[in-house]
Amino acid sequence: MASPASGISLDPWFDNYADRASGLSASEVRALFAVASRPEVVSLAGGMPFVAALPFDKVRSSVDRVLRDSGPSALQYGSGQGLPQLRERIVEIMALEGIRAGVDDVVVTTGSQQGLDLITKLFVNPGDAILTESPSYVGAMGVFRSYQARVEHVAMDEQGMIPQALTERIDYLTRQNVPIKFLYLIPNFQNPAGVTLSAKRRLDILDIAKAHKILVLEDNPYGLLWFDKPPPPAIRSADDSGVIYLGSFSKTFAPGLRVGWVVAPHGIREKLVLASEAAILSPSSFSQMILSDYFEHQDWKGQIDTFRGLYQERRDTMAAALASFLPGVSHTMPLGGFYMWLTLPEGLDSKEMLPRAVTELVAYTPGTAFYANGEGQRHLRLAFCYPTPEFITEGIKRLAKVITEEIELVSTFGPPASEIAQATNVDSSSPGVN
Amino acid sequence: MASPASGISLDPWFDNYADRASGLSASEVRALFAVASRPEVVSLAGGMPFVAALPFDKVRSSVDRVLRDSGPSALQYGSGQGLPQLRERIVEIMALEGIRAGVDDVVVTTGSQQGLDLITKLFVNPGDAILTESPSYVGAMGVFRSYQARVEHVAMDEQGMIPQALTERIDYLTRQNVPIKFLYLIPNFQNPAGVTLSAKRRLDILDIAKAHKILVLEDNPYGLLWFDKPPPPAIRSADDSGVIYLGSFSKTFAPGLRVGWVVAPHGIREKLVLASEAAILSPSSFSQMILSDYFEHQDWKGQIDTFRGLYQERRDTMAAALASFLPGVSHTMPLGGFYMWLTLPEGLDSKEMLPRAVTELVAYTPGTAFYANGEGQRHLRLAFCYPTPEFITEGIKRLAKVITEEIELVSTFGPPASEIAQATNVDSSSPGVN
Repeated sequence: MASPASGISLDPWFDNYADRASGLSASEVRALFAVASRPEVVSLAGGMPFVAALPFDKVRSSVDRVLRDSGPSALQYGSGQGLPQLRERIVEIMALEGIRAGVDDVVVTTGSQQGLDLITKLFVNPGDAILTESPSYVGAMGVFRSYQARVEHVAMDEQGMIPQALTERIDYLTRQNVPIKFLYLIPNFQNPAGVTLSAKRRLDILDIAKAHKILVLEDNPYGLLWFDKPPPPAIRSADDSGVIYLGSFSKTFAPGLRVGWVVAPHGIREKLVLASEAAILSPSSFSQMILSDYFEHQDWKGQIDTFRGLYQERRDTMAAALASFLPGVSHTMPLGGFYMWLTLPEGLDSKEMLPRAVTELVAYTPGTAFYANGEGQRHLRLAFCYPTPEFITEGIKRLAKVITEEIELVSTFGPPASEIAQATNVDSSSPGVN
Repeated sequence: MASPASGISLDPWFDNYADRASGLSASEVRALFAVASRPEVVSLAGGMPFVAALPFDKVRSSVDRVLRDSGPSALQYGSGQGLPQLRERIVEIMALEGIRAGVDDVVVTTGSQQGLDLITKLFVNPGDAILTESPSYVGAMGVFRSYQARVEHVAMDEQGMIPQALTERIDYLTRQNVPIKFLYLIPNFQNPAGVTLSAKRRLDILDIAKAHKILVLEDNPYGLLWFDKPPPPAIRSADDSGVIYLGSFSKTFAPGLRVGWVVAPHGIREKLVLASEAAILSPSSFSQMILSDYFEHQDWKGQIDTFRGLYQERRDTMAAALASFLPGVSHTMPLGGFYMWLTLPEGLDSKEMLPRAVTELVAYTPGTAFYANGEGQRHLRLAFCYPTPEFITEGIKRLAKVITEEIELVSTFGPPASEIAQATNVDSSSPGVN
């Protein structure tokens, strides 16, 4: 039982956990986010797609057709690799981003998060390195830590990961004899930085990875959600043998069905199926059949156009509000996806500022969540995907009040203690994104 | 690329896998089961529930209500622990088996298989021991192997695991300084043996586990599917602090939604939620809401009664057919659930016999699948859950032909080579089940 007086939860099984369990820790901002989910708070924190824009009558007709025509098989166990009819749809969807793959190359997963989990389980021994962008997706780093990986950030700028910084980091780790298991990239509208890896760098980075025999893990949940023009072709489109590709229906359709997929080279794909069967037996037949029907019978491309317009309007609204209310704060200008990355004036700490923001009824994700090495204090991520434009403007207004007061506080009393510590320990190899 | 001439698939990433990937191997009978899924084969192999008996009109009305009343949240990400309204239903269901738990004690998972995966990930370092029944569930052993656990079978008889054998195995491992992380049990209508752990042994085994500070992992997918009378109360009902309980909707409703749950002591439960978030972010909101609605509004207890009657008739049919066509083969007589366990006459090998059975258009699961140590040649598992009574009778007829011919073959030419090897290497601590 927990002892409320001491605040310490006594777990009688504490000594029994595996070593890897030490990699599991609750986010420091978790408790705060529970508060931030109250309706009066404008949350610019969560990356939830705006599923209310889905055509629910068409979703219902797909569900009805599945239950009517295939009820017993929709409610039964399925194959570990996923249903062939859905894998056919996935192959068609990926063709839009330049990927040629066969139905046999695809493994359906319980969201692309499960793909990350399975791949990390397959490849990572404790202490092995995984290269990531700087900053990187908080959920990926959570999986990596849960298998005791060593996450190594590689610097990026407005064009995405910097090839020279990648080479230097590989050389450094190689000299230290640290095995590098893969290079994890979100090339399109990156989470959290909102930047897109340039076409040239995609090929340069692929060449570097191949030269060092490092697998590339390309995570692409947002690629179809571009605003003015499509991003460059997927890295996987340039190489079948050294790139594992992760796809998802969570942003083009809905996350509530928990369906994503992995495309992997032959030998890896076979092991992924076995690993997935060990973990969950098979992905949901019901979810897969609904998606398969929807992508066969409904105007899913038109729906993605709807999402694009909606998210573009929200990005524009956020950018305009930032220009109006926070002209001194720099931010990235994403060409698609869900996220903008802010750089605060010197002396501010986004994590320390968060409780004050929640008091002012606005929430964001502090930059430190996206670094494995404690950096990110001066950054924060804003998500423009879920709140309506009106709420986005109101949220940025509230945020501007908090930041302005914070700047005044710092100019009066100096930076907080943590900021001083950061200034003396800053890792010059990870300049972050402006 | 694979070289078809040599039959060897060359994986260029072969040297990059983690050590634990060596624990992932395709079942030897996997290819054969692909053949056995043809409609002309009577499969007594798979443990698929007979979902065609579900009231599809009522399922549809639950789905419609979810989409109509809660569409956007049903299609959105949910909480990592699972939706509170479903956890309330789960608490009510478990009360039927004597378990008192709070809504906060429950973690919803993607089938109980994911619960097995998360618990093994949390507790097992490579080389740690897990105690199991002898034989045990093939899917659990697959997970255990995927984390490099050492699976240690403990002998059982018609009353389930033998307490004295458990004590001896614990003492043996303790002398060898092998950490024992948990004791995995399927107390009701065990998979594959079809036996039920007696009430007295439940308490005796719990006492032994507590005395040695070993966690009990109670897996109970079949508990509500009893035939003439309910099984003894769940082990968890006698102890909150040392028992992790796994439940599932796959057999009382349908596996196609992939929803199960874990009830765990407080500290373990907190870590399970973090581990589940790392692995899949959150379980499917849509699946959870459908189940929550169905278990709130429909006559689910009446439906379980329907399943009970249906499976009991199939068990009776199988037992009668075995008595008629295979009087010399002994088998267990399950009091619920899905499975019967056969012991073949001396000299027969169920795995070697399987190709001949499939040629005769009947399939079963060889006993070796349920042992981590190569035993089980003389045993096989028959599942009576899925085929209709007519097909069960026909399947047993076909099986009888195969076994009868096999007995003649052995009496003419002697046992196959593998059987001779087994006879000289048999582990007397694991007598199996008759």
